[in-house]
Amino acid sequence: MAGSSFGTIFRITTWGESHGKGVGVVIDGCPAGLSLCEEDIQKYLDRRKPGQSRFTTARAESDKVSILSGVFNGMTTGTPISLAVYNQDQRSRDYSRISDTYRPGHADFGFDVKYGFRDYRGGGRSSGRETIARVAGGAVAIRLLEALGITVQAYTRSIGPVEISRFDPSVLNKNPLYMPDAEAAEKASAYLAKCMEGQDSSGGVIECVVHHMPAGAGDPVFEKLDANLAKALMSIGAVKGVEIGDGFAAARSRGSENNDSFIIGDDGKITKLTNHAGGILGGISDGTDILIRAAVKPTPSISRSQQTVDRFGSEKEISIHGRHDPVIVPRAVVVAETMTAIVLADALLCGMSAKMENVIKIWKH
Amino acid sequence: MAGSSFGTIFRITTWGESHGKGVGVVIDGCPAGLSLCEEDIQKYLDRRKPGQSRFTTARAESDKVSILSGVFNGMTTGTPISLAVYNQDQRSRDYSRISDTYRPGHADFGFDVKYGFRDYRGGGRSSGRETIARVAGGAVAIRLLEALGITVQAYTRSIGPVEISRFDPSVLNKNPLYMPDAEAAEKASAYLAKCMEGQDSSGGVIECVVHHMPAGAGDPVFEKLDANLAKALMSIGAVKGVEIGDGFAAARSRGSENNDSFIIGDDGKITKLTNHAGGILGGISDGTDILIRAAVKPTPSISRSQQTVDRFGSEKEISIHGRHDPVIVPRAVVVAETMTAIVLADALLCGMSAKMENVIKIWKH
Amino acid sequence: MAGSSFGTIFRITTWGESHGKGVGVVIDGCPAGLSLCEEDIQKYLDRRKPGQSRFTTARAESDKVSILSGVFNGMTTGTPISLAVYNQDQRSRDYSRISDTYRPGHADFGFDVKYGFRDYRGGGRSSGRETIARVAGGAVAIRLLEALGITVQAYTRSIGPVEISRFDPSVLNKNPLYMPDAEAAEKASAYLAKCMEGQDSSGGVIECVVHHMPAGAGDPVFEKLDANLAKALMSIGAVKGVEIGDGFAAARSRGSENNDSFIIGDDGKITKLTNHAGGILGGISDGTDILIRAAVKPTPSISRSQQTVDRFGSEKEISIHGRHDPVIVPRAVVVAETMTAIVLADALLCGMSAKMENVIKIWKH
Amino acid sequence: MAGSSFGTIFRITTWGESHGKGVGVVIDGCPAGLSLCEEDIQKYLDRRKPGQSRFTTARAESDKVSILSGVFNGMTTGTPISLAVYNQDQRSRDYSRISDTYRPGHADFGFDVKYGFRDYRGGGRSSGRETIARVAGGAVAIRLLEALGITVQAYTRSIGPVEISRFDPSVLNKNPLYMPDAEAAEKASAYLAKCMEGQDSSGGVIECVVHHMPAGAGDPVFEKLDANLAKALMSIGAVKGVEIGDGFAAARSRGSENNDSFIIGDDGKITKLTNHAGGILGGISDGTDILIRAAVKPTPSISRSQQTVDRFGSEKEISIHGRHDPVIVPRAVVVAETMTAIVLADALLCGMSAKMENVIKIWKH
Repeated sequence: MAGSSFGTIFRITTWGESHGKGVGVVIDGCPAGLSLCEEDIQKYLDRRKPGQSRFTTARAESDKVSILSGVFNGMTTGTPISLAVYNQDQRSRDYSRISDTYRPGHADFGFDVKYGFRDYRGGGRSSGRETIARVAGGAVAIRLLEALGITVQAYTRSIGPVEISRFDPSVLNKNPLYMPDAEAAEKASAYLAKCMEGQDSSGGVIECVVHHMPAGAGDPVFEKLDANLAKALMSIGAVKGVEIGDGFAAARSRGSENNDSFIIGDDGKITKLTNHAGGILGGISDGTDILIRAAVKPTPSISRSQQTVDRFGSEKEISIHGRHDPVIVPRAVVVAETMTAIVLADALLCGMSAKMENVIKIWKH
Repeated sequence: MAGSSFGTIFRITTWGESHGKGVGVVIDGCPAGLSLCEEDIQKYLDRRKPGQSRFTTARAESDKVSILSGVFNGMTTGTPISLAVYNQDQRSRDYSRISDTYRPGHADFGFDVKYGFRDYRGGGRSSGRETIARVAGGAVAIRLLEALGITVQAYTRSIGPVEISRFDPSVLNKNPLYMPDAEAAEKASAYLAKCMEGQDSSGGVIECVVHHMPAGAGDPVFEKLDANLAKALMSIGAVKGVEIGDGFAAARSRGSENNDSFIIGDDGKITKLTNHAGGILGGISDGTDILIRAAVKPTPSISRSQQTVDRFGSEKEISIHGRHDPVIVPRAVVVAETMTAIVLADALLCGMSAKMENVIKIWKH
Repeated sequence: MAGSSFGTIFRITTWGESHGKGVGVVIDGCPAGLSLCEEDIQKYLDRRKPGQSRFTTARAESDKVSILSGVFNGMTTGTPISLAVYNQDQRSRDYSRISDTYRPGHADFGFDVKYGFRDYRGGGRSSGRETIARVAGGAVAIRLLEALGITVQAYTRSIGPVEISRFDPSVLNKNPLYMPDAEAAEKASAYLAKCMEGQDSSGGVIECVVHHMPAGAGDPVFEKLDANLAKALMSIGAVKGVEIGDGFAAARSRGSENNDSFIIGDDGKITKLTNHAGGILGGISDGTDILIRAAVKPTPSISRSQQTVDRFGSEKEISIHGRHDPVIVPRAVVVAETMTAIVLADALLCGMSAKMENVIKIWKH
Repeated sequence: MAGSSFGTIFRITTWGESHGKGVGVVIDGCPAGLSLCEEDIQKYLDRRKPGQSRFTTARAESDKVSILSGVFNGMTTGTPISLAVYNQDQRSRDYSRISDTYRPGHADFGFDVKYGFRDYRGGGRSSGRETIARVAGGAVAIRLLEALGITVQAYTRSIGPVEISRFDPSVLNKNPLYMPDAEAAEKASAYLAKCMEGQDSSGGVIECVVHHMPAGAGDPVFEKLDANLAKALMSIGAVKGVEIGDGFAAARSRGSENNDSFIIGDDGKITKLTNHAGGILGGISDGTDILIRAAVKPTPSISRSQQTVDRFGSEKEISIHGRHDPVIVPRAVVVAETMTAIVLADALLCGMSAKMENVIKIWKH
């Protein structure tokens, strides 16, 4: 099935494997007239690049993006934008152990059942490198949102048992864990160090907030804005849960607590007194901040010995050595941020034809 | 935007408003040769019908389904199956209060911004009656899954603070809350009675388990099986969070705890020792039980007085009287079950062309 | 496969068989705020209704449309518009002869191979009655175009060897063949009478012209406006060829003849001196009249004896009696017109997000 | 709008402009286990390469394809196949004349209206180089068809007034016009020489025949096999008409002539006595040869002086010098062939789930 595209009007199609020639994305449906250069995209790729701290793999990749089409004189032309990042560090090593053996927590077994065989080098299509294409595509979506004054900001909410207890944007980019709480970041670092000592890994939670989203985006039934955000985040490898607003806490609360009163804001516009809903009601943005969270499981590749089987049906022990982050969360922060941006950009473009008043505004002269 | 369809090959398109002529669904892409009659669908609709306990609205609807096309001599023909449920109890009443006033926790405000106006009668397109079409469509998906030996079972995991502590299938359908734990059901009933006394409502959690799902369904990138399940569940009105397997608990765990060892099962086939993953790895089913959960917010319509604004920008008080369930969960159980079935049926049909071996099996003679 | 939908944003999904309970369409993605009532749709259905002349079947169907959803207070709400036409004249007759025998020129054999069996009553899903749903859906598209000042007009260009030699709109609706040339209509009538005498049928050509289409609609690669028009027309049963502008004649001409010079029109706007291109260049409308043609094969159901085989592999003779038009063209005129309207409406809605200037116009405040 | 993708399951997404860094295609949904190397694709690209005869432009491009992903150990893996062809001959020249002036017969004006501006270098996205991506994608579709024993063969049927009168496959690839009739090829060459002398160009007709297509592919309503073929061919730049089987001639014929009798063939299988239908009945393949034709307009770029206007609304004269083929047909033959292959491959994959019998065959064990 054609499962490598995401979005309806603003649509990305990604390609590439960990140890092939590279990874890339074609962004189709981006409006013409958006100022765009490679640096606009590179700065997002740099945030997910490996080798930036002791908590990320040492794989040596510069991850430099090239714009191959769709931009002319510094502006998008409305035609497909093709972006490629060529792989550099495709270490030639011995894959014989993992080529036949199913790593616990990985898609290896499912791939073999589905496709009959797989590109086992470095995880192939299921490698974390697949997210480069999402980030590159999402960076373009962020440019579109910026043109409308909308901002998207993701960060690490928790790592293992360590959760942030404040939001201090000034420290967010100053720690390798992207936590907006310096004290929590320190505790989380200590916790991760212990995990690494134990040849183990940790999960965590990413949070993402969207400011200045206009009301009226998203659809009331299947294409609810939160439904598409849930799909977008759950489609990131290792994500096992998604929440909007109060999320699972809402399930324990009462209507009188959970409902947000509408009020007239200081600017005379309709807004809400509280935001338990996370900025979306009935699938449609309500003009307040959108707040979402994604639960990320611990890195499945750990060097401890684990029990498993091989493709010939024999039980085996496996220890996964090599380059692996002890926690996926920090590098996935920018992936969540850019996937969120793609959903929002698409919902805004899809929503342009919601009423005849707008159709007439664009087409009737 | 055309947002009323769901699925790629097995695709449902729904229509209808709470107080229009009815609600319905067109199921396109259902294979020919599946035995199907109205009773197969009706039994699922009966599970979500109002008026079955003191915890559901008294709206008098028989919700009888008609098959209008796509079935001949008791078998699906491969052409679109059109199902309709005509509304009966469209009480003529005075909507002037809610027509101009935005109910907290509802989509009213978003609708007005998006479309310019709305069918305010009973929630219009955002009414719970919209889910009738999902259930009818999903009942057909369940027939398809049954033909492959796959079963889907959803139930209430918690209501407010009351959570099940056992899974006893024998009591599941014997309490109006669809809890598989008689003691918890009793406690939850008492809790709901208190909510109702306080003119308030409660949230809860739905859990859904899939047995006998074959390995190899779902896609590795955007069309991950869990990503589509997340979208499906989050698209149900009032759902604010979705989890697969351990979900948010995985974020607090370690790799050595969260990884499921592959083993050779008693039947000589590959299976797993544990199932923290919830039956899906890297977006592809692994042949073990699929386990998902959805967090449902409290019913937003409560008769307590609430602060809000009207469409003319004046602040107002509103008390929502009329027919409303104090908790959405029990009637949403069958909606979650049927939406899950649609995702699985679609993934299975989409996956048929994953390898040339299968293409040749079907087309080369 | 889910093949009963057409269009991307303005999308119709049709259902129904000739001898089932009815036929219908769900129109999703129609903007809110379009004035719409059943009569707006009925007048198009009336143009394709059987029994209106000696050249159409005598099947007694009133073909009355019901709007089941998506319209409130006489206006579209932006939610799916469900339209149904219930079958009335489902004559109970003996289908044993055609149930097992493949009618030449029909889809019977293909259906049996594809689906394993078929609803053979009256052609089932492949009946001409399927087009009712297209016409109903297209009537809504026409309302949308009207709101933008765009008109679509189809008519019969030729029947068998008889071609129009003038375009006189005043006679177009005054002859049952929908020919804009009274003399040709008379000759064509005589020709058809001869065909009927010989237990035979005739083909013909439909032409469709669109006035006041704005420039800039359609896409430059796969979603070319003419590519979608070609698909729309070729998807009408019995259509075997499609042309835009000069069509096949362009293949015999030279560049200096075929190119249309751009000029400044009397209103000071850019237009063209000639219109060999038929209003579309490089897949994008150029603001001049769109001109398309569809070749329709002769009605395959003829009462003459024909050679064929049955599903058990025996050779047979078949004579198809019953209700059949000697020519499909006149009743297909309105089908071509409405399918054209759907393509144009969809292209206009899809094109709204082509440039940032428009995105900002709709979303930035 | 996201208009650069084509196909539902076997889906190609193309990118690239004439004078950008290159052109390319991502093929998603290709089954795993298909043997594929660059040479399989290159041989199709070589057939459309410029500079191969005096009737094609002299632009110096080697058009070498690179497989960037989706192939491992010489086999497709089921993941997206990314193919790129980098541009080499991007002559730096003065575009000031065409940057502001609308070339007759080209999309320039439409582009400016739609997107606000355009990449005017060499036609940008509307250049003939866009078809490289189609051919590369279609070459993969042809590999898939070959695995099922299906062959697709396109050729030139006519150039200007010169039409073939025999089909001799042995000469087809021996003349630069790809005509299967040596005498006609000679006459056509002489005709083209005259066109060139007159600073003019010619149109022509491409024909494509498919052998060994199994019956039962294609859908009965909107996704008719011929409807998708019509879209595929009409989406090739310069195509203005499409026919299936007898096409427009069927419109002039009678039912008794046009109907094809079903018979039992020599191999004991159901086939047809004649093939006026062109291998497709009611949208579904009937197991006989598929026969389609496309009318191609004359190359719009001619060096004769033509009347036009510029983007500032002034009338102008324009003479288009530089590298242009006097006829598009010969190089478009392989484009028609590969686009046809994509439609067929997609229809076959989409059709796998048409009946439960097949679903059970693949999924139930």
